Amino acid sequence: MSVKDFTQDLESFLAAFEERLRKVVKSEVEFIGLIEEDLVTAGGKRVRPRLVFLASAALGEVPHALELALAVELIHSASLLHDDLIDDAETRRGREAAFRKYGNAVSVLSGDYLLSRQMALLAQIGNLELVALCAEAARMLSEGEVLQFQVAALGEYSLANYERIIHGKTAALMQLACEGAAVLAEAPLAHREALARFGALYGQAFQMRDDYLDLMGSSEVLGKPAGGDVREGKVTRITLRLLEAYPEEVGAIFRRRGREEGDVRRLQELAQQSKAAEEVIQAIAERVEQAIGALRELPRSAARDQLEALAKRELVRLS
Amino acid sequence: MSVKDFTQDLESFLAAFEERLRKVVKSEVEFIGLIEEDLVTAGGKRVRPRLVFLASAALGEVPHALELALAVELIHSASLLHDDLIDDAETRRGREAAFRKYGNAVSVLSGDYLLSRQMALLAQIGNLELVALCAEAARMLSEGEVLQFQVAALGEYSLANYERIIHGKTAALMQLACEGAAVLAEAPLAHREALARFGALYGQAFQMRDDYLDLMGSSEVLGKPAGGDVREGKVTRITLRLLEAYPEEVGAIFRRRGREEGDVRRLQELAQQSKAAEEVIQAIAERVEQAIGALRELPRSAARDQLEALAKRELVRLS
Repeated sequence: MSVKDFTQDLESFLAAFEERLRKVVKSEVEFIGLIEEDLVTAGGKRVRPRLVFLASAALGEVPHALELALAVELIHSASLLHDDLIDDAETRRGREAAFRKYGNAVSVLSGDYLLSRQMALLAQIGNLELVALCAEAARMLSEGEVLQFQVAALGEYSLANYERIIHGKTAALMQLACEGAAVLAEAPLAHREALARFGALYGQAFQMRDDYLDLMGSSEVLGKPAGGDVREGKVTRITLRLLEAYPEEVGAIFRRRGREEGDVRRLQELAQQSKAAEEVIQAIAERVEQAIGALRELPRSAARDQLEALAKRELVRLS
Repeated sequence: MSVKDFTQDLESFLAAFEERLRKVVKSEVEFIGLIEEDLVTAGGKRVRPRLVFLASAALGEVPHALELALAVELIHSASLLHDDLIDDAETRRGREAAFRKYGNAVSVLSGDYLLSRQMALLAQIGNLELVALCAEAARMLSEGEVLQFQVAALGEYSLANYERIIHGKTAALMQLACEGAAVLAEAPLAHREALARFGALYGQAFQMRDDYLDLMGSSEVLGKPAGGDVREGKVTRITLRLLEAYPEEVGAIFRRRGREEGDVRRLQELAQQSKAAEEVIQAIAERVEQAIGALRELPRSAARDQLEALAKRELVRLS
């Protein structure tokens, strides 16, 4: 297949995805409809559906790839709705967070509605191994998010906890998107494992880059002021290094949740000066390289190249 | 089977249920463990597991009945955790609501954790029709809860909305408990339909009684002051009749959410005086009768008798 044909296939897959999503989340309850509109029109980058498409294309024909993309995206959307309470996010995909418009209650329950629609899709797909895989990803997602809350509340900062959190809250679903395609394709174990590894490592790099930019990015790129994680007491890989290197100064900044004028700027300075920033960029690069390495198990194809390109994009605009 | 043997079977089923529940919800994340303890030790009446047991016993042997009971109870428990945000409940099963101890965030995400464990159970049971049935019940549950919120927010009070709400928030899961057993037993359609009808009607009567007592019950029976629904702007069958009969006076009480001294007492008086209370008791009795009628499709058994007795209990302590 030529790259041009391939790109057209991706476009039509994503168009079909948007159309089906709109139908799947439709409810007779008006308040759910409001959330639904927010979700459907807000769009987002649809990273997970793209992963499902590319993983499927790399394997050849995969039955129910569209339904898998919908199921994964619905778990993701539900987690955004449930996680808005924690994050106290002022913006989410550039729009006012749903819970500010319609209240926490409707947000949480609409998230439950999306999860019920995801279960209906799984029943329709009719693959019990995929049900188990989704259950496992959803378990890691919720555990990762609770752990993040617990670590912030109790100050249990460690690299091990950070790794568990980013795997749970981001990488687990990316892995599901890729591995799920392999399950539906009944792919050989080596291909399934390769895609699972790719999804997990790519997801980790993705979240590490997000966390990096949360501190080091400009507010224009972020669409919100830098340092959001510090204000929520969330330690990321970069601030973990800073806490080790400057326990007193950075510890004090964390205890006051970066509330003093200049706190975030000071963390940025220390990150550059101590080379903590550089180190984290290096760690992301390694994760991207491992992800690409995992793909070597799959036969060369336009889709595999695209997965590689997707992973490499995590290295852009970091340094 | 004698009634004595039968009661022993129920006891051992419930004991096995508690033990498995403890294992199923176990998590390495400490904060989830706190919620879990609350849930496991708090117990509750386990109405849904009882229904699964009785429906299964009425059908003969049902594979995976215990796993079905766990799955249904986990959806119910998750909904309690997610619904605590709405209800602003001061007590839940006589204990401080989980979210007051550990925060809304942990509560919501721990609910998601329970839902993921429920999906894992479904994968283990391995029956795709049951996955579809659970998805449908979970959809109605979330839709019913959002609708309740919407109706309170917009004042869209009607009997039709009330019926949809009680079916969604309570009866759908009761129906799942009974119909799910029939699906696992591969029971004849007539038996499946009979159990589905019984579960739905019993669940409706159950919620109608709950709503009746919320206004008319003593605070000792309720374990909280009467009139909680009024304070949340929730119209139930009884207050719906009062709004029709005394639009100005009762309308004013609802608009101020029963905040004035004597408001709840006045509603109680009007309910007795206008016979609205009596009418609702009558409606509950009809629902119970229909539920028992549905059971007639099943062969007579100790389990069927117990289901009947369970339904009749909804008529106790009302008048």
